[in-house]
Amino acid sequence: MPRPGRSAFQHIQVATSRLFGRMLILDDAIQTTERDEYAYHEMLAHLPLITHPAPQRALIIGGGDGGTLEESLKHPLQHVTMVEIDRDVVDVCRRFLPGISGEAFDDPRTHLLIEDGIAYVRASRERFDIILVDSTDPKGPGLALFSPEFYAACAARLTDDGLLVAQSGSLLYQRDLTEMVRRHLGTAFPVVGTYWTPVPAYPGVLWSFSYGSKRHDPRRVTDETITHRLAAIPTRFYGPPTHATALRLPPLP
Amino acid sequence: MPRPGRSAFQHIQVATSRLFGRMLILDDAIQTTERDEYAYHEMLAHLPLITHPAPQRALIIGGGDGGTLEESLKHPLQHVTMVEIDRDVVDVCRRFLPGISGEAFDDPRTHLLIEDGIAYVRASRERFDIILVDSTDPKGPGLALFSPEFYAACAARLTDDGLLVAQSGSLLYQRDLTEMVRRHLGTAFPVVGTYWTPVPAYPGVLWSFSYGSKRHDPRRVTDETITHRLAAIPTRFYGPPTHATALRLPPLP
Repeated sequence: MPRPGRSAFQHIQVATSRLFGRMLILDDAIQTTERDEYAYHEMLAHLPLITHPAPQRALIIGGGDGGTLEESLKHPLQHVTMVEIDRDVVDVCRRFLPGISGEAFDDPRTHLLIEDGIAYVRASRERFDIILVDSTDPKGPGLALFSPEFYAACAARLTDDGLLVAQSGSLLYQRDLTEMVRRHLGTAFPVVGTYWTPVPAYPGVLWSFSYGSKRHDPRRVTDETITHRLAAIPTRFYGPPTHATALRLPPLP
Repeated sequence: MPRPGRSAFQHIQVATSRLFGRMLILDDAIQTTERDEYAYHEMLAHLPLITHPAPQRALIIGGGDGGTLEESLKHPLQHVTMVEIDRDVVDVCRRFLPGISGEAFDDPRTHLLIEDGIAYVRASRERFDIILVDSTDPKGPGLALFSPEFYAACAARLTDDGLLVAQSGSLLYQRDLTEMVRRHLGTAFPVVGTYWTPVPAYPGVLWSFSYGSKRHDPRRVTDETITHRLAAIPTRFYGPPTHATALRLPPLP
């Protein structure tokens, strides 16, 4: 039976909070909680999947809890490859936080690979329309996931109109990180930017995602497109207003 | 010359933060800062002023820094009465945080009264289309501003299609307060609800406002109406997407 503890890569803990329910903690940082995971996962997955006019194939780097995978599979994709370095994270989440992934790991479109995402992107010859980088903080094994070299390798894995979104830290407490991600994405993509969502369990609450895109610009997606594409996709937070608000950064000190 | 210190009502401090710039602190609680005040004041003022189809007269209770007044005066109102209990707050803010009020206190439409807002609302025979309650936390002199009796007195001062918005605390750390405000508003108004905005300097970042309305529902305002009404009104954060997003509460633990 999978259980929390020290894996080959990190210290995995599952804690229960009166307010947030069960939460996954990696190396002492809260990664996701039962109560507020949906805003993070919906905004990470749906905003790029709606920005691309007809995505068929997606790649998720990290995201071991399965929340990004579950949201992605709500779209009529043919295929999702998920590359998670730490099998123990997947196993612990499936056992202790099963509501976050739902049936996503059993979906026939899901191809779960337990390996280093950086090595995978360098070696693979697959092409994807969307890449979602659902990483931990930039330290230890996750550090290279924020490098220009990694983003260039991702760009090579994307189709000619593909786009990538990466979590890029706390808008309030990791502003250097957010700016670095956007700058590094700019070395590999012509269209780059940052958007945000509230995630109460994260430091500073306001969380950032940054995108690098070869062609499609999230800022040009119309409300009508979002409404039409979401018709058969249930969401709790993502929609036309939150798409637009996410791209308008809040006041920052 | 006005200066920070102990007024007749509270301890007034002005501090400078490297991140937030100058900030007003009342009884040890941050009230507003130069860098992030605009989201709070825009969302407090514009959402109800746009929800009402043609507001002419507004009443502001509290709001001594003048930010809510300044945003309100961007609308083609005939008259704004502002009732602030503590003249020292107004004077200190005009001297040390002049950018928050701009020219608002000198606008000929502004009628500033230094008196108790509760007594004013009880005694006045004026009628207003909009009431904005820009109060401190519910303690000391501000406590009665959250009572059903005060909201009933406000309802009596509103025109037949008037509405009131009150700041109602931190979505994360003052949930009992937010729920109490909405419940108390429900005793005086048929249409009630809560909306939010990010305010980085406030505890928990996600701040709530609650509305009580006799007729007009902020949830029924269309993007077209907002765009049309805002054509001549410069805003940095409020607009069609933030109006709609504000009314869709984020994940709460």
